[in-house]
Amino acid sequence: MFNIKHQNTIENAVKANHERAFYSQYPEHPKAYGENAAEQGENRYKALLQQPFKQLLQTGETSWAGEEVSPYTQEALGITYPIFSPDELVHRAIAAAPQWRNTTVDVRADILVETLEAVKERFFDIAYATMHTTGQSFMMSFQASGPHANDRALEAIAMGYHEGNRYPASLMWEKPMGKTSLQLKKNFRAIPKGVGLVIGCSTFPVWNSLPGIYADLVTGNPVIVKPHPKAILPIAIVVAAIQQVLQEKGFSPALCQLAADTSTALITKTLCEHPGIQLIDYTGGSAFGNYVEALKNKTVFTEKAGVNSVIIDSVADIDAVMQNLAFSVSLYSGQMCTAPQNFFIPAEGITTSNGRLSFDEVVQKFKDAVVSLVNNPKMGAGTLGALQNENTLERAHNAGKLGAKVILEGQPLINEEFTHARGCTPSILEVSSNDKHIFEQELFGPVLLLIKTKDTHESIQLARQMAQQHGAITCAAYTTSPEMKEKITEEMNGVFTPVSFNFTGFIWVNQHAAFSDFHVTGGNPAGNASFTNPEFILRRFVWVGNREVAGS
Amino acid sequence: MFNIKHQNTIENAVKANHERAFYSQYPEHPKAYGENAAEQGENRYKALLQQPFKQLLQTGETSWAGEEVSPYTQEALGITYPIFSPDELVHRAIAAAPQWRNTTVDVRADILVETLEAVKERFFDIAYATMHTTGQSFMMSFQASGPHANDRALEAIAMGYHEGNRYPASLMWEKPMGKTSLQLKKNFRAIPKGVGLVIGCSTFPVWNSLPGIYADLVTGNPVIVKPHPKAILPIAIVVAAIQQVLQEKGFSPALCQLAADTSTALITKTLCEHPGIQLIDYTGGSAFGNYVEALKNKTVFTEKAGVNSVIIDSVADIDAVMQNLAFSVSLYSGQMCTAPQNFFIPAEGITTSNGRLSFDEVVQKFKDAVVSLVNNPKMGAGTLGALQNENTLERAHNAGKLGAKVILEGQPLINEEFTHARGCTPSILEVSSNDKHIFEQELFGPVLLLIKTKDTHESIQLARQMAQQHGAITCAAYTTSPEMKEKITEEMNGVFTPVSFNFTGFIWVNQHAAFSDFHVTGGNPAGNASFTNPEFILRRFVWVGNREVAGS
Repeated sequence: MFNIKHQNTIENAVKANHERAFYSQYPEHPKAYGENAAEQGENRYKALLQQPFKQLLQTGETSWAGEEVSPYTQEALGITYPIFSPDELVHRAIAAAPQWRNTTVDVRADILVETLEAVKERFFDIAYATMHTTGQSFMMSFQASGPHANDRALEAIAMGYHEGNRYPASLMWEKPMGKTSLQLKKNFRAIPKGVGLVIGCSTFPVWNSLPGIYADLVTGNPVIVKPHPKAILPIAIVVAAIQQVLQEKGFSPALCQLAADTSTALITKTLCEHPGIQLIDYTGGSAFGNYVEALKNKTVFTEKAGVNSVIIDSVADIDAVMQNLAFSVSLYSGQMCTAPQNFFIPAEGITTSNGRLSFDEVVQKFKDAVVSLVNNPKMGAGTLGALQNENTLERAHNAGKLGAKVILEGQPLINEEFTHARGCTPSILEVSSNDKHIFEQELFGPVLLLIKTKDTHESIQLARQMAQQHGAITCAAYTTSPEMKEKITEEMNGVFTPVSFNFTGFIWVNQHAAFSDFHVTGGNPAGNASFTNPEFILRRFVWVGNREVAGS
Repeated sequence: MFNIKHQNTIENAVKANHERAFYSQYPEHPKAYGENAAEQGENRYKALLQQPFKQLLQTGETSWAGEEVSPYTQEALGITYPIFSPDELVHRAIAAAPQWRNTTVDVRADILVETLEAVKERFFDIAYATMHTTGQSFMMSFQASGPHANDRALEAIAMGYHEGNRYPASLMWEKPMGKTSLQLKKNFRAIPKGVGLVIGCSTFPVWNSLPGIYADLVTGNPVIVKPHPKAILPIAIVVAAIQQVLQEKGFSPALCQLAADTSTALITKTLCEHPGIQLIDYTGGSAFGNYVEALKNKTVFTEKAGVNSVIIDSVADIDAVMQNLAFSVSLYSGQMCTAPQNFFIPAEGITTSNGRLSFDEVVQKFKDAVVSLVNNPKMGAGTLGALQNENTLERAHNAGKLGAKVILEGQPLINEEFTHARGCTPSILEVSSNDKHIFEQELFGPVLLLIKTKDTHESIQLARQMAQQHGAITCAAYTTSPEMKEKITEEMNGVFTPVSFNFTGFIWVNQHAAFSDFHVTGGNPAGNASFTNPEFILRRFVWVGNREVAGS
């Protein structure tokens, strides 16, 4: 018999999930983890380089391979991973399933929190691994792949625990029949759907994968983790930590397997189409995401691309707004799925508490704020990070060829710590509301579009259209008018896009807080799932009720 | 400002939904509704015959049409219904939507319970309408289309109320930042997906449609109700009652519209494919159901066909078991989606508390029980009801041509009250476990297959395979062995099929009680949805969270 060691943690998380006030189990400050933790993590990270990765509890590999390159040094990490055949991975998952399926959700949740505690011990290893595969800054790497990812994983565990306990395991049903009654013993079981597959992306290999991994596991499904071949290490460390705890607790490490592959021998489609895979979580581009969504007989959770808008109608303090937006667009060089891209500004300009600003003045303020941030030696390189891959760099370099008026041309990134870092400062382009062919595409990376509209009504109409047709994960809006606020909310919520109003100071539209902000709504083409709403959990299992004549 | 008149009813229903003990808001005994209610209902039903149906609050029809025929008299009801163009129906629904969407879920739930109270006043009109369109007996017509349907509707309302109130409408989010803190005002909105379409079937025109209708409405979506052209009247009366209450409460009756059509000018596909329709609930055959499930950009809830199994392993009292099964297969002549069809019996026979019975003895007992029931003048006709349509009659007539050994040939139904009733007593066929081509199809209607298997393990394996490949809504099993019970549960639940063990006496596998038994699990090909699990509600709306800097 198991004790539920982490019951308080789980129940507090369930409560937080529902209250949606500020809540965090894993502090986001590196300092909270001890003075030497960062250095020790860096050393452990360095010790992994130029070696086969041996932490996994998986055997039977057919070969070893790896192709990760640090966006900061542009040198190969030299780490190889065991490669397995898709059939082998699926068969091992199926073999491991029954014991886990027949364990109560309480015990599963407890063991999974224990795995998060084990992952916590590797936060800094994971941070350096994330930095040197994704190009995120150290701070973002630490927070996004460490405490923030763990918090989102806990959110999924808590939702699984809550939903899995929603109905009584057994009860006596008694129907009055006049002077007598009819009695049935009933039991309700949350039957897991099967084997899960979690397909990661190259920019957020941990944060975007943990919710699906933990949602599969808490609901009783084994999971196969298929990282992007250019960003394996961060999630490999997590998977190894999970496997270690599973084994310690008497369960098969095959409940959570790493399925590394290479760019020249991708196994993603083979896994997706494998009849032994029932659940798929996907983060990445829309073309592959649409393929995944169209697969027959699979339960699919996607986060794809989108075009995020900022509607500027009227502001109190224009400088505070522009500083906030400059940071939002520069953060990780626009490689966040929540980064704003399209800025809708009325041709007649906007009102501020210091009077009216013309369109051109707004554009100038925006340009100045971006230039000032990226040229700030204490801020620039750390905010921008590095570009994960060459395609993004090329897209940024070619921004000037899109046919728009170039307001600010991207410059080579100057990073004193990493002189070979792959990077480029943001390009700012100006277009008119007629240039839909330019702004209706996702320009992933450091490219922004300032769109001159007839008025805010047109801005809203275009932002709405973009979200409906091309997807949107976020929308920021600046207005001092209550009526306009209501209209923007109604219109954008109507296409299932959340709105963040009047963000200035230390809060940016890019950020989604676990336990409070849903990440992606699931209602527009940016994705069909949401971290972590009830559906994200419920679609992974099926409620089945059995009945029995009492005493039979 | 509205008062929540039915708050107690709603909260009791939420509690019942979760506890899953016996619960009912609408008594199933006709007597509970007053002494003259049945007669008044019959008179109101008769007054509707040979007339245009004028109770709907819908205008702008293009024509009037109707083609219902009573399975009891085989005469046309002569009722015509207003016919509308699909575009007109969708446009009216869209126009009615905003006011309803912007009403709180509490008020919507309250108004919807009020509509159920109005429907209750028509229970007997609906009962006669159901009887003379579906062929159900009077008692089944009353219960299934009256109190049982209303209870399932209330279940959906309660689930919508619970889920719609799951997150706070607004709150202050406060993140500690050292000596200061960051404050955001947040609000959470459950945004309805759009316009719903509920496609009914000819055998349970009310019971199978009400959950979808009320699930759409409680979550803020207008709904278009598309009945089977041969069974319009029962649901037309319900829709009219709903429209009346909506109008009284100041809402548009177009929130719930009837979309009658005719066999020669069906509008179902046009409605399904209409870009203005976002949600579809479907009950009926698998071919059309698979088409509905494959539609792009629609949220779809289906109940299709299945092959329900009975596994007979060992019994205490064989006569009690056979009486129970004879009733199950005779009830409404096997036209219930929960009716058992395939009976798996080991070749070596079964054990009973009075010793062993050979396979042939079990078959004989089964045949005797069916013959005894259908020939019982007090039971036969009332249990069998009538066959809804000619196809079902023809299938029953042709049962002997399936290539199986005929154990009992179906006979013309003798119904003294309705001498022209369309009907046929059950046909019993015997096949071997090799005759999969015979028993893997749904033989909707009064045709049963007794399948001789090697042993109970083969019985289980075949029942499992049928459920997995062809779908199953129910499974009955008889065993006195705890190990076998566990194995049957594990295997059938593994293909998302519930099991009812050792049913004898006044409880039959066909029955699913609201507030306790999920109807269809949604996990096998018999359907992708379940009355009423949380998904049945959650997939009809999208949670969207907005944020705002406090004081901005």
